[in-house]
Amino acid sequence: MDVDMVEERSFDRRPEFLALNPAGTTPVIVEGGSFVVPEANIIAEYLDETRGLVMGDKRLLPDSPAARVEVRRLMQWFNAKFFDEVSHYLVQEKIYKRFMTNDQARQFGGLSPDTNLVRAARSNIKYHLSYIGYLTRQRNWLAGDQLSYADLAAAAHISVCDYLSDVPWAEDQQAKEWYARIKSRPSFRGILADRMPGTPPSEHYVDLDF
Amino acid sequence: MDVDMVEERSFDRRPEFLALNPAGTTPVIVEGGSFVVPEANIIAEYLDETRGLVMGDKRLLPDSPAARVEVRRLMQWFNAKFFDEVSHYLVQEKIYKRFMTNDQARQFGGLSPDTNLVRAARSNIKYHLSYIGYLTRQRNWLAGDQLSYADLAAAAHISVCDYLSDVPWAEDQQAKEWYARIKSRPSFRGILADRMPGTPPSEHYVDLDF
Repeated sequence: MDVDMVEERSFDRRPEFLALNPAGTTPVIVEGGSFVVPEANIIAEYLDETRGLVMGDKRLLPDSPAARVEVRRLMQWFNAKFFDEVSHYLVQEKIYKRFMTNDQARQFGGLSPDTNLVRAARSNIKYHLSYIGYLTRQRNWLAGDQLSYADLAAAAHISVCDYLSDVPWAEDQQAKEWYARIKSRPSFRGILADRMPGTPPSEHYVDLDF
Repeated sequence: MDVDMVEERSFDRRPEFLALNPAGTTPVIVEGGSFVVPEANIIAEYLDETRGLVMGDKRLLPDSPAARVEVRRLMQWFNAKFFDEVSHYLVQEKIYKRFMTNDQARQFGGLSPDTNLVRAARSNIKYHLSYIGYLTRQRNWLAGDQLSYADLAAAAHISVCDYLSDVPWAEDQQAKEWYARIKSRPSFRGILADRMPGTPPSEHYVDLDF
């Protein structure tokens, strides 16, 4: 799918954006100029229902109810648990705060990155890398034999941390191999080409051999 | 469906429970003694796929992709946002802490209920009641003309707060009427009959006219 990306600083709480998604969270997709789908996991379900059904073995959500539970469980693991414990802290402290006003940053302890939160995120990520390693020692991809939304959710969050040099790849060789496979897929090129203004990526961010 | 309810104190982090759901969260269902489905929203999707498809106009997730987005959005609103802002605080401070050890309660500021968190929850719930009122002024049920998982998610969380006398019903007459309709449904009887040992419900908890 071709999409036009629009940057939304959710902490601005723009009324026009809150009208699209009253929860005020990103990501949100707008289709045909008017139909709105919020939340990463709900977007995944919607794309599956409107495009995935005809994709055969490239479908990102499997057919059987049991296999779907595992994809959804791991999608939620990364979109909610990993986000809460790792990527949310890193992005808020290291990126969002650079664009916030003093007033906006006050409820997050001010404009300086909170080193305790960054340290907590860097510690928490180790356990998630172990979990990725554990899963991919038993299966080809995170939720089973086929690539699924679970891999994309995990790789999306990991890539943000990797951009910020916050993934200790030496901790788990198997997790690193899984990410190398994801990274080499053509669909990942856009993510690797993304740049945050004023924040260059880690040295190995785009390397397929890292 | 008939289910056997099993109490799990997730803060105990029992290895046997973590084997069922590595995220350590409730609810979890176990079907046929072995197949495990975690997380309220994933359980809802699973029940729809294994039972809901044949339920006709009693199905709790609608057919069209667009209508499904709205049910999922509101299910997530209550299972995640309302939980984070309201019910989680109330349950943790007023119920879970009564069953925790000193050690378990330490990371939550000790065994005494944190009155700031309880006060925050009581303030936050007003805005959610307004949202329920706003939605049900435009629609028969929360996500549309039919009862859906969105109503059940909202009512499940609200009923917990109502048990604890923490729903200011006078704030929104329309939200109150929506809850009265849910409360009078036969499927809600089990929830109204539930009791927490040592914590009696609010006086009006079971009243259909409250």
